[in-house]
Amino acid sequence: MGRVESVLKSLGLDLPQAKPPVANYLGTKQSGHQLFVAARVSQQQGVVGDSISLEQAQLAARDTLLQLLAIIKADISDLDKICSVVKLQGFVRSAPDFVAQPQVIDGASDLLIALYGEAGRHARTATGTSQLPYGAAVQLDMVVELR
Amino acid sequence: MGRVESVLKSLGLDLPQAKPPVANYLGTKQSGHQLFVAARVSQQQGVVGDSISLEQAQLAARDTLLQLLAIIKADISDLDKICSVVKLQGFVRSAPDFVAQPQVIDGASDLLIALYGEAGRHARTATGTSQLPYGAAVQLDMVVELR
Amino acid sequence: MGRVESVLKSLGLDLPQAKPPVANYLGTKQSGHQLFVAARVSQQQGVVGDSISLEQAQLAARDTLLQLLAIIKADISDLDKICSVVKLQGFVRSAPDFVAQPQVIDGASDLLIALYGEAGRHARTATGTSQLPYGAAVQLDMVVELR
Repeated sequence: MGRVESVLKSLGLDLPQAKPPVANYLGTKQSGHQLFVAARVSQQQGVVGDSISLEQAQLAARDTLLQLLAIIKADISDLDKICSVVKLQGFVRSAPDFVAQPQVIDGASDLLIALYGEAGRHARTATGTSQLPYGAAVQLDMVVELR
Repeated sequence: MGRVESVLKSLGLDLPQAKPPVANYLGTKQSGHQLFVAARVSQQQGVVGDSISLEQAQLAARDTLLQLLAIIKADISDLDKICSVVKLQGFVRSAPDFVAQPQVIDGASDLLIALYGEAGRHARTATGTSQLPYGAAVQLDMVVELR
Repeated sequence: MGRVESVLKSLGLDLPQAKPPVANYLGTKQSGHQLFVAARVSQQQGVVGDSISLEQAQLAARDTLLQLLAIIKADISDLDKICSVVKLQGFVRSAPDFVAQPQVIDGASDLLIALYGEAGRHARTATGTSQLPYGAAVQLDMVVELR
């Protein structure tokens, strides 16, 4: 087991089964040293600030990140090959008056930093939206750099 | 006529006239080997899942991709210079209960794969939104890699 | 004072104080020659096409870009190190019938071109959305290339 997966285990977290893409695309695509990770949505469905609380949405963001990591591992075999997290893009399905999208996406950012330390710190977007695939609460995609 | 344009022709499809950007930006911008392609919206207007069906939205996604390809050709002269499709980002103007955004964007992804084969497979996002420029149904932007 | 800051001054504009990120992320992250700049939202709150006019939204886009530039300067110390603006991504919190997102984002694109000339021309997205962090009117993030 690699270093990153050991940290994950020590946090009491497991990688889920990597699910194949739901449509005609790849889980990841490499361009030079950059790995572009396709978007995944949370299994948690619902509207944040309405049926879903901030705390539930933060967990949904963390769970979505675990899905992204599972896909990366399936594609490049070892999460320790990531030397830098470059950019995390997050969309939050938001009630009309919900404006704490950055705090939701922290559920994913915090875990990236716990796993990768300073190299896990990243640029980011956190954007509200009215609807996501399958009625999910959160959607994440990412660019990471490989050794 | 290059290989990719021949495949396009064999599919019964034509590149549209490359339209200049609607505002103060470029159609494409190169960074290293990557070509960033600015977003275009579908000529098809309307709300998917309401006035626009899934099938109409898939055609709108395909037509928007043809616009992107026309712009790329205008800028780099030959679509065969693309050696890899890296990332496709799609937004779908969605009715409140419409959640099949990935199937809509397949209208573009399927064509990329038909044209470029394995190299055309890409990472992707498919996100719902409440409104797009000119009331369009679909918006696409892309990162490709050049030889 | 560098060249770009001199141009800014000649336009009667000042860089604001660089504000630290509102959540657990970096203002910028470098990957090869590319600098990914995290999203910032406008101080201007409200819904464009409803409580906010097109002209107000264009100013909000310009002010948001000034925030991004302040963050870049804080991180890399000199705005003249940017040799190319690659991609600008903009989200506009839009009234249901507001469709002039590209014109809003021109408020930022025009300034980039005034500051960097041809090198400031960029690929771009301009997308409508229902909600943004803190109820802001405009959100921008960017990829630039460094010398």
